Amino acid sequence: MPKTKTKKRILTGDRPTGPLHLGHYVGSLENRVKLQDKYECFFIISDYEFLTDHLSRTEELRKNVKNLVLDYLSLGIDPKKSTVFVESEIPQISELTLLFSMLVGLSRVKRNPTIKEEIKTRGISKASYGFIGWPIAQAADILCVRAELVPVGEDQLSHIEQTREIARDFNRLFGFVFPVPEALTGKVARLPGIDGRKMSKSFDNAIYFSDSPKQVKEKINRAITDPKRIHPSDKGHPEICNIFQYYKAFNKEELNEIKEQCQKGKIGCVACKEKMAKAINEFLEPIREKRNYYSKQKNIIKDVLNAGNKKTEREAAKTLALVKEKMHLDYKLIL
Amino acid sequence: MPKTKTKKRILTGDRPTGPLHLGHYVGSLENRVKLQDKYECFFIISDYEFLTDHLSRTEELRKNVKNLVLDYLSLGIDPKKSTVFVESEIPQISELTLLFSMLVGLSRVKRNPTIKEEIKTRGISKASYGFIGWPIAQAADILCVRAELVPVGEDQLSHIEQTREIARDFNRLFGFVFPVPEALTGKVARLPGIDGRKMSKSFDNAIYFSDSPKQVKEKINRAITDPKRIHPSDKGHPEICNIFQYYKAFNKEELNEIKEQCQKGKIGCVACKEKMAKAINEFLEPIREKRNYYSKQKNIIKDVLNAGNKKTEREAAKTLALVKEKMHLDYKLIL
Repeated sequence: MPKTKTKKRILTGDRPTGPLHLGHYVGSLENRVKLQDKYECFFIISDYEFLTDHLSRTEELRKNVKNLVLDYLSLGIDPKKSTVFVESEIPQISELTLLFSMLVGLSRVKRNPTIKEEIKTRGISKASYGFIGWPIAQAADILCVRAELVPVGEDQLSHIEQTREIARDFNRLFGFVFPVPEALTGKVARLPGIDGRKMSKSFDNAIYFSDSPKQVKEKINRAITDPKRIHPSDKGHPEICNIFQYYKAFNKEELNEIKEQCQKGKIGCVACKEKMAKAINEFLEPIREKRNYYSKQKNIIKDVLNAGNKKTEREAAKTLALVKEKMHLDYKLIL
Repeated sequence: MPKTKTKKRILTGDRPTGPLHLGHYVGSLENRVKLQDKYECFFIISDYEFLTDHLSRTEELRKNVKNLVLDYLSLGIDPKKSTVFVESEIPQISELTLLFSMLVGLSRVKRNPTIKEEIKTRGISKASYGFIGWPIAQAADILCVRAELVPVGEDQLSHIEQTREIARDFNRLFGFVFPVPEALTGKVARLPGIDGRKMSKSFDNAIYFSDSPKQVKEKINRAITDPKRIHPSDKGHPEICNIFQYYKAFNKEELNEIKEQCQKGKIGCVACKEKMAKAINEFLEPIREKRNYYSKQKNIIKDVLNAGNKKTEREAAKTLALVKEKMHLDYKLIL
């Protein structure tokens, strides 16, 4: 199966846990939109991964998947350039997960740092077998299309280590099938939520792409700034202010000016927030317009996903056929 | 999906580790042949399960699967009555395995008595994630066709306990899909190998259906009988003699006579073994003839497996569609 493509292949994506927010954008989605021209991108909507800790919330899935595709489109992910697909629609991912699960020791699975971290972050008390083994399914996500690059933050390198091990072990045991994927590291830009914690739906501190101008204003007004600053004339400390982080992402033009004014007590938080809400709304306006436009196109989600699922399944079927051939699990000669 | 069938559905099968032997017959295969008329039988060739501890021996698979089907046919498994299929050819089994893995706690998996026992029996030192989770994949084997009965020995009830738990948990969490399968227990008849240990390929103590009359004679000659008996005229102890166990299975007519003669020192082991070899060869003769007949039919294996895989996949696809619908993992409304 010679590769005729010249662009390197990327896999990344999202769990359909809810609408995307600005925290997803900074450091991740903004890069993703740019990657589309340089790379062949596959964007996975990981609904099986959603199950690892949302088993009782599956009624949300249909709505969440729909909104995720709308978010993607309005942010500039272009289905003509990139492939968007739903994990559960690709049976080969499950099949590779089962096959890969024979290559990984239980002890290796249990000492996976990403899983340990997730158990803490998501507050999981009784981990399921499927949750603990998730890095193996993730390897199947990535390797089913034989992706060569996976975008991760510099602090997330361990996230793809299991995938790299599986690719290497498989190739060594059965013969070459998988390029060992590399991390495509970006700067670890993180946008905090309006309360300073990680921006997340569960903390109720997120600004969504689907928020109205009024909602954005209200949320920015509620944001925690420099807690030591009582009066507008007090000297501020931008480095500990959440809103100042937002300037870095959405109003670079005024960044230095605001910093100086804040430090000198020449601008109050109310005025500073007003500016910020305006900047975010300006940033969101074209996204909202596109979202509105796509929402009205009757078959757009169906078309994007059908095409993406089809293309991904075609690639995954090629991969699985190769895997089974190498493992002598193909019965072509007797069937 | 109303059931029009009236016969209860059974699932059982074999790992394609090598040719079948008399130890498989007694207590298992002999019943299986009888079950075909009373039940709707699915016989699985578990090649994925083969991987749990034979990852380095996959080149055997094609030959082993072929021989297993030949063994089945020559023993009287009738593809017109029953369905024979290969596990890896049914993608829904992998998909259900992944979904079920979210329902089972890691701690539950680790305390599975069957797995603990297998780790000992098969001498596994570093268990893989896939091996430890095998009872979950086995549940997928059984539940993919919504089998109602699983033949097991009375001492193997725990083997299907995980499947029953998954069926119950799924139904409770998402709505009814799975009948909770029952064990179809038979008497625990066990035929020892010629050395008295469990009859097994790995102990080199097995008599195969594919053995020639000469091979059978030689093996019976090597068999360990009553170790305290030195001379033919010594009084024997049938209850500790392996060959006497063989009489119970293959020469019931002479059972009591032989017992008496042995206990009184009136028949020596050589003569007793000769009788036994003859009885086994008489039992095997029609099986050998059928094996020979089927071996010459060019497409028989292909036809049996293609038909079986197709029927099983059709059933498994129905099951998975139902599972996904109940779990809200179907995107029919948006796709």
